[in-house]
Amino acid sequence: MSDWTDCLDFGVSIAKQASETVLAAFVLQKEVQLKSSPADLVTETDQRVEQILISAIRARFPLHRFIGEESVAAGEPCVLTDEPTWIIDPIDGTVNFVHRFPFVAISIAFTVNKQTEFGIVYSCVEDKLFHAQRGRGAFLNGEKLQASGQEDVSKCVVVTEIGAERDDLALSTMTSNILRLLQLPVQGVRALGTAAVDMRRGGVVMDTDGSDFDMMSRRVIAASSTSVANSIAQVVQAFPCRRDDDDPTRCVCGAAGVKGE
Amino acid sequence: MSDWTDCLDFGVSIAKQASETVLAAFVLQKEVQLKSSPADLVTETDQRVEQILISAIRARFPLHRFIGEESVAAGEPCVLTDEPTWIIDPIDGTVNFVHRFPFVAISIAFTVNKQTEFGIVYSCVEDKLFHAQRGRGAFLNGEKLQASGQEDVSKCVVVTEIGAERDDLALSTMTSNILRLLQLPVQGVRALGTAAVDMRRGGVVMDTDGSDFDMMSRRVIAASSTSVANSIAQVVQAFPCRRDDDDPTRCVCGAAGVKGE
Repeated sequence: MSDWTDCLDFGVSIAKQASETVLAAFVLQKEVQLKSSPADLVTETDQRVEQILISAIRARFPLHRFIGEESVAAGEPCVLTDEPTWIIDPIDGTVNFVHRFPFVAISIAFTVNKQTEFGIVYSCVEDKLFHAQRGRGAFLNGEKLQASGQEDVSKCVVVTEIGAERDDLALSTMTSNILRLLQLPVQGVRALGTAAVDMRRGGVVMDTDGSDFDMMSRRVIAASSTSVANSIAQVVQAFPCRRDDDDPTRCVCGAAGVKGE
Repeated sequence: MSDWTDCLDFGVSIAKQASETVLAAFVLQKEVQLKSSPADLVTETDQRVEQILISAIRARFPLHRFIGEESVAAGEPCVLTDEPTWIIDPIDGTVNFVHRFPFVAISIAFTVNKQTEFGIVYSCVEDKLFHAQRGRGAFLNGEKLQASGQEDVSKCVVVTEIGAERDDLALSTMTSNILRLLQLPVQGVRALGTAAVDMRRGGVVMDTDGSDFDMMSRRVIAASSTSVANSIAQVVQAFPCRRDDDDPTRCVCGAAGVKGE
């Protein structure tokens, strides 16, 4: 069990099973609750899918720990330990889910000794299952993925998200970042509304300041090459943002930050 | 033939046929030529698909006129007359096409007396065929579409595109517009990289200054209701932009601006 492949296989099977609940609810009108801002939504389905995933995994792996976006939002602690830990965002892209914008993902990461062993992103409406495992690479529906390796940022398209923060500093920083990226120039800017789906092709990950990726920091650049990631890090600015492990009231899970190499 | 349904049916069948050329090329590396800016691309496939569409339609309807994005870029006139006219963008989302970002559309509008009789948007990779016909409504794969009718802009997601202009005024105006939309607030901003696909659900169309939609102006708001369209028109600013029919060197075709009602 040293490479955790049995956990990965179980995670994939339970993600597919839970997606049935997501898809059944996708076409319906939703009752929405607000979390930290008018753009930070949660529905009954987010909570239900998280419960389905956690209870199934707990039954199979009773000693493992969990960090679930909705459990944390409801007050559970968000602390990453060395124990085998499942980090779960039941529906990444809840605003899309509410608006039936067809990009919503079940996002799962699995860490041991604070290192990510694998990540699973199941884009339910597209029926695309991405997974990456440490040292084995990234896959889409079982087929190996390869980042382009492009080194020239002016030949790149950047995918970004505004996020759910709605204070003036966060919004003006995010839109200034988009302007600076366009002036690099890049060939285009896209936003699908789910960071997990956006980043499924990344080859290199780093912090927005160019340092090592930190899963709990809420900051990440995923790019085709170190050169492109550095070009982006040089122009984007971070706005003050609490860390996930500082903040008992809210957690943005980082399952998509798994490097496929 | 007064309702032009035979033209619509022919347009749908030829769009599906031409999509085979798009899909075959989608997975390949592309040779790219620049048009007006480093973000305004054209590939051999754009030109080939436009030729396939125009030659098939001309064989069937020899008296009809054409405005094709790539023909216009190559120097043909871009003037809308009262004659039955097919307005064609062979690949809306060429940057996506080059990057294999899976939103590319064959976009066709058909006008008579300068009025749009029908529009066809075939999102090839998704295999979603949208069409709208004057007085008959909008359809996805033959099923009737209904805009939400939402009247409260703060419950909306806005889909927008930066476009291919890369001068400082255009870029700063576009990113300021995004900031002002977020401050309305709206629940999110998305960008897929193809205006034809973005707008396939719009219920009301108007100019960005709140006046009537003008197909040749390169400006459009498509929204769930007049109330939401007006809320958006009040905060967005236009940047100086040539009209399509002023400009012999470039045409952005407006097939997506068809109102489904």
